[in-house]
This record gives sequence, structure tokens and C-alpha cells, in this order.
Amino acid sequence: MMADQNMNDFLEVLSSSAPVPGGGGASAYAAAIGMSLGTMVANLTTGKKKYAEYQQEIEEVIVKSEALTKELVTYMDKDAEAFEPLSKAYGLPKNTPEELVVREEVMEKALVVASEAPLALMEKVLEAMKILERLAVIGSALAISDVGVGIQMAKAALNGASLNVFINTKLMKNEAVAEDMNSKADELLAEGNDLADEIFDAVMDRIR
Amino acid sequence: MMADQNMNDFLEVLSSSAPVPGGGGASAYAAAIGMSLGTMVANLTTGKKKYAEYQQEIEEVIVKSEALTKELVTYMDKDAEAFEPLSKAYGLPKNTPEELVVREEVMEKALVVASEAPLALMEKVLEAMKILERLAVIGSALAISDVGVGIQMAKAALNGASLNVFINTKLMKNEAVAEDMNSKADELLAEGNDLADEIFDAVMDRIR
Repeated sequence: MMADQNMNDFLEVLSSSAPVPGGGGASAYAAAIGMSLGTMVANLTTGKKKYAEYQQEIEEVIVKSEALTKELVTYMDKDAEAFEPLSKAYGLPKNTPEELVVREEVMEKALVVASEAPLALMEKVLEAMKILERLAVIGSALAISDVGVGIQMAKAALNGASLNVFINTKLMKNEAVAEDMNSKADELLAEGNDLADEIFDAVMDRIR
Repeated sequence: MMADQNMNDFLEVLSSSAPVPGGGGASAYAAAIGMSLGTMVANLTTGKKKYAEYQQEIEEVIVKSEALTKELVTYMDKDAEAFEPLSKAYGLPKNTPEELVVREEVMEKALVVASEAPLALMEKVLEAMKILERLAVIGSALAISDVGVGIQMAKAALNGASLNVFINTKLMKNEAVAEDMNSKADELLAEGNDLADEIFDAVMDRIR
């Protein structure tokens, strides 16, 4: 999988003109970083008297956040796979009216596939945000800044992934499908951005 | 260096209760991802007739953005090094009045060191944002969404790093030093967040 490579190599291939990875893979990894920071803030409470009352919940949160981190990382690969049919569709011939019809049909399907991956990622990012929200309360107070950094990473991932939804839905001929996906993305953006700002402001208030 | 490890391993150590990496290292890598996306958008114009007029500038931008990516990555290590004296200071004994005096002096110096690294990172992130701003104009229009993702990563890095400034300045006894660093961070936050929102909104307008 993509995340098996070293961090410098990822930056190098990201910088190149290769079709993937791009913003989708970058968003997925940023979200995984955000969730990992949450796991850290949970892990830092282990064995501390102050957090004894939350210990059972913390253990459940760690299981959830570790699983979600792993799932977020798979979206680096899912995004690349989802982009492949679109990349191929762009290469189809368009010399005759028949070729144009075929190209348009293939393109339309490829656009749906390419939009589904970032939309699904956005949903997963919102799950991560809700875990971070709870960790701002029950996580280690000493590492509260890391919840704040985590929520920033998740917010960047949410907004980043949304661009990959909108850039593809805009090219769809089927307006109903495009509008349906856009409205789902808009809902996730609205909920996620509000939640992220709320958590970040609360963290900032505790720090300053 | 820290970025020589594989991406999954980084997530694992980030998730652990180890003192570093934490939010500072995560912010530095997110910024490097953002700048790499900028380099990609620049690289995608190479040899394209449409961008011929900008080709010389693009080549200069690529040199700058590649160098800045490498520099941003070094902040993963700089952040860890800057945290080390503070981590040690917390471990100093505080049983006698003399020990308390020594501990406070060492702590005060360590807090300055721990704040300087994220503050310097914030300055570098602003440089990256200004390059992304230009790439929204002269970069590949087909990859405009990647400029948008890049600016989201940079914004997350800027805000994330600011938390690591504020969490340390708050503990300083020397209020003049603390206020000076806070006001620098506030200026960078104000300028960077405005710029990031401007660029992201412009990208969104072109996509939707």
C-alpha cells in the first residue's frame, strides 16, 4: 500500500507530475495523522490517577481511533484506484461521433467513481472529528494542544477531499447525480467545519 | 532524519505515548505535503503551450518550492530537538527551595527553545502559502484543486504550530518574552489565515 513507502519518497512522488498521488491521497494521510494525534492523547492518560474514571472509555476510544487511522490510510490507495478509470477515460479517442458517445459514457461513470472516494473519505473524517471532540474532554490535559493540531489536520482533510468531489461532479452530464453528491459534500463540510472550529477554539481557550 | 521512516511507522509512533513526534512534527510534515502539491501543480505545466509564457517563472518556483519542502521536513527533527530540553526540565527534582530555583531557570530557557521552533515553522509556512498563491495563477488549471488542498495543509500546519507556541509561552515567567513571541505568532496567524482563505475561496470559485 501507498503508506508503506518512506515519508520523503511520498513527498517526491507527490511533487512529480505523476497522476497519483495528489490532493486526495494527501488529504487521506493528513486525516490519519490527525486521528493518530488523538490516539496519542488517549494513550497519555493510561495509568494516570487523574483519568482513572475514564479509563474504560479511553480504552474503547483507542481501539476505535487505531482502527479508523488504518482505514483512513487505505483511502490513499482507494483515491488512487478511483482516479484510474478517469485517467483512462481522458485518453479515449474523440475523432468520430461514435467515439465521442463512447467516451462520454465512460467518462460519466469514471467521474462518479472518482467522486465517491473523496466523499466516503469526508464521512470517515467526520468520524475522526467526533472522536477528537470527546478526547478534548477525556484525553490528557497536558497534550490538549495535540487535539487542536489533530482537528486542524482533519479539517484540512475534509476541505481538501471536498475539492475532489466538486471538481468531478462539475464535469458530470447527469445533473441529478452531481447535485446529490454535492449536497452530501456540502452537509459534511458544514457539520465538519463547525465542529472543527468549535473544538479548536475550545483548545485555544484552554491554552492561552 | 524523521522523514526517512515509512508513513505507517510514523503514524504508529505518533499514536504512542512517546514524547515526540507530536503536533509539531505533524504540522511540519503537513506543510511539506502542502508545498509538494504546489510543486506538482507547477510540474504539470512543463512543456504545455498554454503555460509557455510562465515557463521561466515556473522553473524558478519549482526550485524554490522543492527547497522549501526539504526545509519544512527538517522542522520535524527541529521540533523534536527543541522539545528535548523541556522534557528534561520536567524531570528535574523539586524537593528543596534551591532545586526549585534551578528547575525554574532551566524550565524558562527550555520553554523559549520549545516555542522558537514552531514560531520559525510558522514563518516558513507563510512562505509556502505565498508560493501557492502564485501557483493558483500560473500553475496547471487542471490541477487547481491541488493548490486548494495544498493551502489547506499549510493552514492546518500554521494553526497547529501556533498551539505549540502558545502552550509554551503561557508557562513562561518572563512576560515580555512571552508577549513578544505571542504577538509574532498572532501576526503570522492573521496574515496566513486570511491568505489561505482567500486562495481556497478562489480555487473553490473556479471549481464549482
